[in-house]
Amino acid sequence: MVKKACAQANYKLGLLDMAKKEAICRACQELIDPFDTELGDNKGTEMRENFLVDMIQGGAGTSTNMNANEVIANRALELLGKERGQYEFCSPNDDVNKGQSTNDSYPTSAKLACILMHSELLTAIKNLSKAFFDKAREFSDVVKMGRTQLQDAVPMTLGQEFQAYGNSVASDIEALSNATNRFCTSNLGGTAIGTGIAADPHFSQIAVQELRTVTGFPMVLADDLIEASSSVGDMIYFSGMLRRIAAKVSKICNDLRLLSSGPRCGLAEINLPPKAPGSSIMPGKVNPVIPEVMNMCAFEAIGNDVTVAFGAEAGQLELNVMEPVIIYKLFSTLRVLGRGINTLRSHCIEGITANKEHCKDMVYNSVGVVTALLPHIGYKKCTEAAAMAVKDKRPVADIIVELGFLKREEVEQLLQPESMCGPTAKKSRTQ
Amino acid sequence: MVKKACAQANYKLGLLDMAKKEAICRACQELIDPFDTELGDNKGTEMRENFLVDMIQGGAGTSTNMNANEVIANRALELLGKERGQYEFCSPNDDVNKGQSTNDSYPTSAKLACILMHSELLTAIKNLSKAFFDKAREFSDVVKMGRTQLQDAVPMTLGQEFQAYGNSVASDIEALSNATNRFCTSNLGGTAIGTGIAADPHFSQIAVQELRTVTGFPMVLADDLIEASSSVGDMIYFSGMLRRIAAKVSKICNDLRLLSSGPRCGLAEINLPPKAPGSSIMPGKVNPVIPEVMNMCAFEAIGNDVTVAFGAEAGQLELNVMEPVIIYKLFSTLRVLGRGINTLRSHCIEGITANKEHCKDMVYNSVGVVTALLPHIGYKKCTEAAAMAVKDKRPVADIIVELGFLKREEVEQLLQPESMCGPTAKKSRTQ
Amino acid sequence: MVKKACAQANYKLGLLDMAKKEAICRACQELIDPFDTELGDNKGTEMRENFLVDMIQGGAGTSTNMNANEVIANRALELLGKERGQYEFCSPNDDVNKGQSTNDSYPTSAKLACILMHSELLTAIKNLSKAFFDKAREFSDVVKMGRTQLQDAVPMTLGQEFQAYGNSVASDIEALSNATNRFCTSNLGGTAIGTGIAADPHFSQIAVQELRTVTGFPMVLADDLIEASSSVGDMIYFSGMLRRIAAKVSKICNDLRLLSSGPRCGLAEINLPPKAPGSSIMPGKVNPVIPEVMNMCAFEAIGNDVTVAFGAEAGQLELNVMEPVIIYKLFSTLRVLGRGINTLRSHCIEGITANKEHCKDMVYNSVGVVTALLPHIGYKKCTEAAAMAVKDKRPVADIIVELGFLKREEVEQLLQPESMCGPTAKKSRTQ
Amino acid sequence: MVKKACAQANYKLGLLDMAKKEAICRACQELIDPFDTELGDNKGTEMRENFLVDMIQGGAGTSTNMNANEVIANRALELLGKERGQYEFCSPNDDVNKGQSTNDSYPTSAKLACILMHSELLTAIKNLSKAFFDKAREFSDVVKMGRTQLQDAVPMTLGQEFQAYGNSVASDIEALSNATNRFCTSNLGGTAIGTGIAADPHFSQIAVQELRTVTGFPMVLADDLIEASSSVGDMIYFSGMLRRIAAKVSKICNDLRLLSSGPRCGLAEINLPPKAPGSSIMPGKVNPVIPEVMNMCAFEAIGNDVTVAFGAEAGQLELNVMEPVIIYKLFSTLRVLGRGINTLRSHCIEGITANKEHCKDMVYNSVGVVTALLPHIGYKKCTEAAAMAVKDKRPVADIIVELGFLKREEVEQLLQPESMCGPTAKKSRTQ
Repeated sequence: MVKKACAQANYKLGLLDMAKKEAICRACQELIDPFDTELGDNKGTEMRENFLVDMIQGGAGTSTNMNANEVIANRALELLGKERGQYEFCSPNDDVNKGQSTNDSYPTSAKLACILMHSELLTAIKNLSKAFFDKAREFSDVVKMGRTQLQDAVPMTLGQEFQAYGNSVASDIEALSNATNRFCTSNLGGTAIGTGIAADPHFSQIAVQELRTVTGFPMVLADDLIEASSSVGDMIYFSGMLRRIAAKVSKICNDLRLLSSGPRCGLAEINLPPKAPGSSIMPGKVNPVIPEVMNMCAFEAIGNDVTVAFGAEAGQLELNVMEPVIIYKLFSTLRVLGRGINTLRSHCIEGITANKEHCKDMVYNSVGVVTALLPHIGYKKCTEAAAMAVKDKRPVADIIVELGFLKREEVEQLLQPESMCGPTAKKSRTQ
Repeated sequence: MVKKACAQANYKLGLLDMAKKEAICRACQELIDPFDTELGDNKGTEMRENFLVDMIQGGAGTSTNMNANEVIANRALELLGKERGQYEFCSPNDDVNKGQSTNDSYPTSAKLACILMHSELLTAIKNLSKAFFDKAREFSDVVKMGRTQLQDAVPMTLGQEFQAYGNSVASDIEALSNATNRFCTSNLGGTAIGTGIAADPHFSQIAVQELRTVTGFPMVLADDLIEASSSVGDMIYFSGMLRRIAAKVSKICNDLRLLSSGPRCGLAEINLPPKAPGSSIMPGKVNPVIPEVMNMCAFEAIGNDVTVAFGAEAGQLELNVMEPVIIYKLFSTLRVLGRGINTLRSHCIEGITANKEHCKDMVYNSVGVVTALLPHIGYKKCTEAAAMAVKDKRPVADIIVELGFLKREEVEQLLQPESMCGPTAKKSRTQ
Repeated sequence: MVKKACAQANYKLGLLDMAKKEAICRACQELIDPFDTELGDNKGTEMRENFLVDMIQGGAGTSTNMNANEVIANRALELLGKERGQYEFCSPNDDVNKGQSTNDSYPTSAKLACILMHSELLTAIKNLSKAFFDKAREFSDVVKMGRTQLQDAVPMTLGQEFQAYGNSVASDIEALSNATNRFCTSNLGGTAIGTGIAADPHFSQIAVQELRTVTGFPMVLADDLIEASSSVGDMIYFSGMLRRIAAKVSKICNDLRLLSSGPRCGLAEINLPPKAPGSSIMPGKVNPVIPEVMNMCAFEAIGNDVTVAFGAEAGQLELNVMEPVIIYKLFSTLRVLGRGINTLRSHCIEGITANKEHCKDMVYNSVGVVTALLPHIGYKKCTEAAAMAVKDKRPVADIIVELGFLKREEVEQLLQPESMCGPTAKKSRTQ
Repeated sequence: MVKKACAQANYKLGLLDMAKKEAICRACQELIDPFDTELGDNKGTEMRENFLVDMIQGGAGTSTNMNANEVIANRALELLGKERGQYEFCSPNDDVNKGQSTNDSYPTSAKLACILMHSELLTAIKNLSKAFFDKAREFSDVVKMGRTQLQDAVPMTLGQEFQAYGNSVASDIEALSNATNRFCTSNLGGTAIGTGIAADPHFSQIAVQELRTVTGFPMVLADDLIEASSSVGDMIYFSGMLRRIAAKVSKICNDLRLLSSGPRCGLAEINLPPKAPGSSIMPGKVNPVIPEVMNMCAFEAIGNDVTVAFGAEAGQLELNVMEPVIIYKLFSTLRVLGRGINTLRSHCIEGITANKEHCKDMVYNSVGVVTALLPHIGYKKCTEAAAMAVKDKRPVADIIVELGFLKREEVEQLLQPESMCGPTAKKSRTQ
């Protein structure tokens, strides 16, 4: 895309003749979409196989940029009826790379790749969020104990819990889009260090305009091309966003593993769909393998983010030569999170079932419900009753009545599980 | 601020009588601004000394919340003409904490603290950026070699380099503000786990409205109080922003140390203001101590961010019990970056001087200038001349002429340093 | 200690006269032990207050080294009957710092400090390990379900579980000592960059010998003083060790919080001693605050370790100028882990009690016990029985009998909880 | 190797008949060494293709363990003249996996893999160290300025600098071996959670003994099998070691890039062998691509280490279910460091040349040499002369003479570059 936009810009500036421009642009288009039916052939697939350079490379991407220049120049030569390597008719450096440097075209390409790749992740997040919302509706009448610090707290519905998961994930959608939008700013035409040396003064503006057309993205030229050449600020920002997503989804998976712990000696509030024989030695054991996989994907993403931070800090003067490893890790994280989240949704979330009766039993059996009486009898009396309930292993309601704090029917009304899953209106505020 | 807003909300809901409300609100105001002249005394300073709890604490902030409840209740009791500890007249739990839980009031307070503290950092960044822009103007006519991968690249002005530093830093201003804005969303009134148990159904809306008045910040209520109770997503987002700032400023400090390396065996393009005797054994040595300090502040911030990531991932079910360490590290980073950046500006950037002649000599002496000839003689001839210049340790201009690529007067005109610091217009495009 | 050893070395080399040496050494001794009764006064405490420099400082510790040189020189001047500042009689640079540079004396001091500080941590670890072993004995007859992946696995005793915690922690004792031993290698006398410039050729050997005497530690001179001057390899190694300890103890605390979850809707196998009112809104709630504190201490240590890694990687040429932040974070981690572990032991581990009956009930009720039958009826039959037990919510033993896999009395004998906590001997191996 | 050792142990215990044992062991041997000439065929290569499971997997390695059990069982069936899948004659679970669980055999295998893989890294480190020592000898007479904080410090030889690099790297050899030795401790036979349930009481001892024979490594049984089952302490220790290596080599690469900066506007003390056309736009530019690659490999290793730390901390109760991602990252780091270091040595270090004259000129021209006069004229006079030299841009020697501090011939003798690269003996100590 970058090379095509640049060829068109150079043509408009009179720096590339029509025939070369046409050949270069067609070669680029074949690479962009090997299956483009208008092109009629499928040269792109073969050309793509000629990208041989490792992601981790010295030279801040020069090898990758030259690889692209050469693949495109040679295909253009073919299209011009010349031999491969007859660079006097179409040169990788003087024609395909004209007006550019690795230092502007490589990061611009990488940012485009992130934009393109992020949409898979975005879709995965949207679908995950939707799956949680669907379950929230399904579980809206499953009353269960909420827990803080792993200790019994107060009642809620399993629906509320899954709704919160959905919202937690959904809030990343906009944030991720915002982070990606920063990648629409390009330093194309800044050449070696952003001063634009060896490029036509009008090149950068026109090239970015053309890039907008080729990509369909709202590309703009960076205000300060020198700053833009050396900065990976947007990449570390993006990596931070991905890290945030990873941490959130990992937290949710930790929860799912907790809630499904059991089957008999754990919380056992939900059941994850069984996916693999759980154990080579414990017959019948079913393990939460999918959330575990997602946890590991998240840990990989978090580690990648530290690599990005190291790379970002290591830039020197007019260039950050660590861009390849930064980009490599961004790609890796985008992939691992996207796939992990899709797997999580389709192989786990969508098949979760609830143990409704067990959840309800635990609420009835709990001491934490005493909190609902707080507006009625105050903190001190509640504490007294709760302590006695724990000590004597008896229902807290009985003790409240016994101690004369409330009448049986009052307690029963106030401690209806469903009514405890929301704010507690006091009957009479003048009380 | 949180306790004051809640007292006012409870009063409006008829849950707190006028006298208690007045006493609690005055106690809060004394804490908010111990030097508030309307209050006439300076009780707040003394009260502040009664906040004894460590930042790192178990219980997700319960100790800090109860500490606040008790300090305020006791001061309110004094104002009501009672003895300290006569909680039947004003209770830490039933009055000051009414309608709240640690799990909503503690994170709300922490977020307010971040908003309040971030403005010092924001100012520091703005001033640093301005200092770079000032230097950019001052150095606008200092032509020097740009470097990529630490190798001589192409000419630029020192002004352009400092302008880029200014812009790099300035771009954090908006991003930091955006990250902070997320802290204006509160889960106040969600109580224990976000269901609002034990709070009046109208409490959360009214309390956040009051909080808007008390703070002057555009506070809003979270859409999903359950999600908001367990989520530290905004904190990890904020931490990621701070980490980005740290990485950027650290990179700039690395550059300053490189550019000022010498005095005789380094790049020696700029001079940092001498600040401390450089060495206990090397007389006369002057070291870049201020950028070094800033590097270390940045490394501390980056480490803090990893602690935040660990804390964020460790949340369980309805609460993230690691909030205290997350908040502690956010505060620590805000402080260390704010102070570091202020020191960097005032003790270093503002006093930087340039070695203009030395910079210019290096440009004249360099091989990299050959890039300016690229649009005129092409990549291959340029490479040939450059290689010969390096090998023979001779000026590249002489070699260009010798090889007959260009005439002496053409070379001299094209290689004027000033004209090489921007795009290279070719005289005739039809050439 | 370093300055005293050096003064003695310089005296032995004839580079310092007896009077100066005596004065400097006494000043050093006062600093080393302000309460040394042989000295008779308590000048050291006052002198210590004159160490004013922040831990994070530019200049690779020059400020701290000069601070020490000056405090000692001025006290020595007093002892010599001169005025403070009359450096012609005893000079901070030419006498106290003689034969040294910041670049050898500062890291040597820092390493000594780590050796001194680590013993508190070592003791804390030893005591923690012992506390776990004590509990292991106490809980040796509490049979409970072991869990893998949070799913019911096979029976074990709570004693075995605590024994494992004790051993996990105990294995750090030797590793920590080994890591600390590396700090006994000093680059003293290497001066500025390790070449020993401005120091007597015999100084380094003699100074390190003296340091051995002063400290009582087995100090040795580094083989390659140039390598030793720039390297922080031992510090990053040590930091890695501390990080390992943090991760292990944090894992144990996560377990304790899981095992004590409840009281009624969790695993509830153990009870942690209640330490603080658990909640400002949930009366009677008791939270695992101490393990939570330890988790947060561990997260801080892990973040510190990343700062150390950043600092270690940022060394340049003959010096790592980031030593101050590395050392600062090592000290911080030593302190936070030492204190955290002591708190964990005394306020939590030592007071843990077990819910023996509940643990046993869960074992009887579990499906996982089927694993004990594996050598007798094979994986396939076990799986069949387990699946049916889960599906029908019935005891697995009944199903085994029903399906005719074993007789009732065989099952009962094989499924005795106590016998399932170790290897399963098959009666007849020829079976 | 693990499965072979276990089959032999089970045979010795009378739990596996001779025919099955033979078949299983041969299948294992084919996998261990597909090209083993004694076996005569090359079945192992084909069998290896049947390991299909991703490194990142849920279930703590159960899929990988079962994959191995099945591949081996099916090959054994073939050897026994049966059909694949006729598990009644040789069962993946009841025969190949006999006496084991994933939780003991998977980590044991992973540790063996680390031992096997680490030797490539060890060799790479040894060779790198040797290459530095070779260069140290070659550069032993290249006198140059040492630099601290990037400022001119005092003279040294380039040989000393490279010797230090060699020693820095060499010190990892023993540390890495030590870290790897910890992997010789196995929890084999601990089965599900370390209690050894379903295994013969003698199995673990015999199996580890057999493993010693099969591997040739000094394998021992863990003292506490329960601790060993859940602990990844040795893995995080090992990861910390690898991280240390990464940080050190990365620091050296940073130095090489600094020392080779130029060719005309940098330090230009050494030349790295040119490896790739440096730039798509700057003709003739040669970049330090190999050290850059090594830096990026190091950053990847450091990020991997954070993933390991996250994984290690996330273990729960009797198992660390994150083992797969920990192991995956250890493998990845072993590979990336091993390859990176080999590339660094062969493509960079071995071809480095020195700019001897330029190095010497910088020393003569420097102010830092004044340090050599310290024992003769003291810190104060040195400082005065140095300051004047910098200010007036004149040789410091001239100023020393001018100010009457020393005579011309004294200065010249003391400032001979060669003599400044070591300790400074004062002529007369009684002076």
